[in-house]
Amino acid sequence: MESNTTKRAPGELRILPIAVSGEIRVGESLGERLIVAARSLRLHFQDGDILVVKHKIVSKAEGALVALDEIQPSAASRAWARRYGLDARVRELAVRESGRIVRRKRNVLITETRHGFICANSGVDVSNVDGGRHAVLLPVDPDRSAAKLRRELKKRLGIEIAVIVSDSFGRPWRVGLTEVAIGVAGMRPLVDYRGRRDPHGYPLHATVDAVADELACAAGLVCGKLASTPACIIRGYAYIHENRRGSGGAQQMIRPAHQDLFR
Amino acid sequence: MESNTTKRAPGELRILPIAVSGEIRVGESLGERLIVAARSLRLHFQDGDILVVKHKIVSKAEGALVALDEIQPSAASRAWARRYGLDARVRELAVRESGRIVRRKRNVLITETRHGFICANSGVDVSNVDGGRHAVLLPVDPDRSAAKLRRELKKRLGIEIAVIVSDSFGRPWRVGLTEVAIGVAGMRPLVDYRGRRDPHGYPLHATVDAVADELACAAGLVCGKLASTPACIIRGYAYIHENRRGSGGAQQMIRPAHQDLFR
Repeated sequence: MESNTTKRAPGELRILPIAVSGEIRVGESLGERLIVAARSLRLHFQDGDILVVKHKIVSKAEGALVALDEIQPSAASRAWARRYGLDARVRELAVRESGRIVRRKRNVLITETRHGFICANSGVDVSNVDGGRHAVLLPVDPDRSAAKLRRELKKRLGIEIAVIVSDSFGRPWRVGLTEVAIGVAGMRPLVDYRGRRDPHGYPLHATVDAVADELACAAGLVCGKLASTPACIIRGYAYIHENRRGSGGAQQMIRPAHQDLFR
Repeated sequence: MESNTTKRAPGELRILPIAVSGEIRVGESLGERLIVAARSLRLHFQDGDILVVKHKIVSKAEGALVALDEIQPSAASRAWARRYGLDARVRELAVRESGRIVRRKRNVLITETRHGFICANSGVDVSNVDGGRHAVLLPVDPDRSAAKLRRELKKRLGIEIAVIVSDSFGRPWRVGLTEVAIGVAGMRPLVDYRGRRDPHGYPLHATVDAVADELACAAGLVCGKLASTPACIIRGYAYIHENRRGSGGAQQMIRPAHQDLFR
């Protein structure tokens, strides 16, 4: 495991976008779809690649969609929507999808989802779906989605590929969204340097790197908001393999409430 | 390892690490040092490249170092350090370097720096310096540091390169550090999709991407904590050039206090 992070000669990383044409249908095999799309771009998956997939195509394949017409917004959601010129049904859905409201101020609703993610509107999103008829939810269990996709790729291609499912979250203190790993399979999402020493012999106290989030961010640079590029391959990153008990998945990246100073 | 001239897939991004041997001296030209290091790796900077540099080598070149021997910790810093088995001088320095204390709990000190960054210990760090004799501070003005480095590269190579200075910050709610752009020059750090429409015609309401942070994270995957790789080139990302009044720099990525729900 050590050789994975330290002894490997510093090498190049490549990020290879996978454009996918057409919408994915509920129940369709996402693995098959991505393999075909990659092949048509003359991209060939390799052992040790990391596949990063935007959550939206995962949610769509899993049917995590809600017809907005069927949502009856509460009076509170309607009042809020009128005030800010937004869609009451989307607000209603965001409230329903939340496990807990973290902040509610002006037009912003920050919630903790049932998975434990803290993000705007419980991750409910209407963009890049079908022009406003349906909203897409987060996958029910993004770690399971990632593991399923990993198994599919292994079965069809016979190789080991780590999988990250990502979404764009805002964050306190800083402007703008960055990608976050909400599902991880086949690799350890965190790299823990604690107890190790820097080249000068000084012990590294507090250094745990959220590499799955950094990989998601790297992928976000090629998976555009306006283009049909829901996935990419990251090649050349020597991730730490999950052990027999699994990787811990993205759930491991959620800071326990009692350790969190900002809830 | 693949050479610098590997054929690129359409839309591909490449992240090319620049290993640097030996320590940089105060006052030394960082641009020159990185050009020489890149050349020895047969890497050639190209127009449109993004150079990401970890802040530590910038701070060292600028002399933003403090001899810990010269710090007289206060009684409060000494008591805290005794309690958590840490270095009272580092705590003292972190408090002195802060503009404002944001949270102080157990062994954690979250501050707002004079630049406006919110991070642990005001960014004061003793790892990867000289084994505990000196602490490194954040650069006095990381946007200025980035602009200076950009000018140096332009003067010596005659090409336009965007520059990002990065540091690793923790964040609320999620475990682990990710890289953050604390200085930016030559490119717009944020990409604003507001007012644009997705491929289905649905308007993108709240979408501003913090691309400089995503670029910093991508760089973080090759710029290791344990290796001497303080910089890398990101090639193939079509960033938005700064206009005549500049890029706004990383300062533009700090959420104004009145818009922040978590201070």
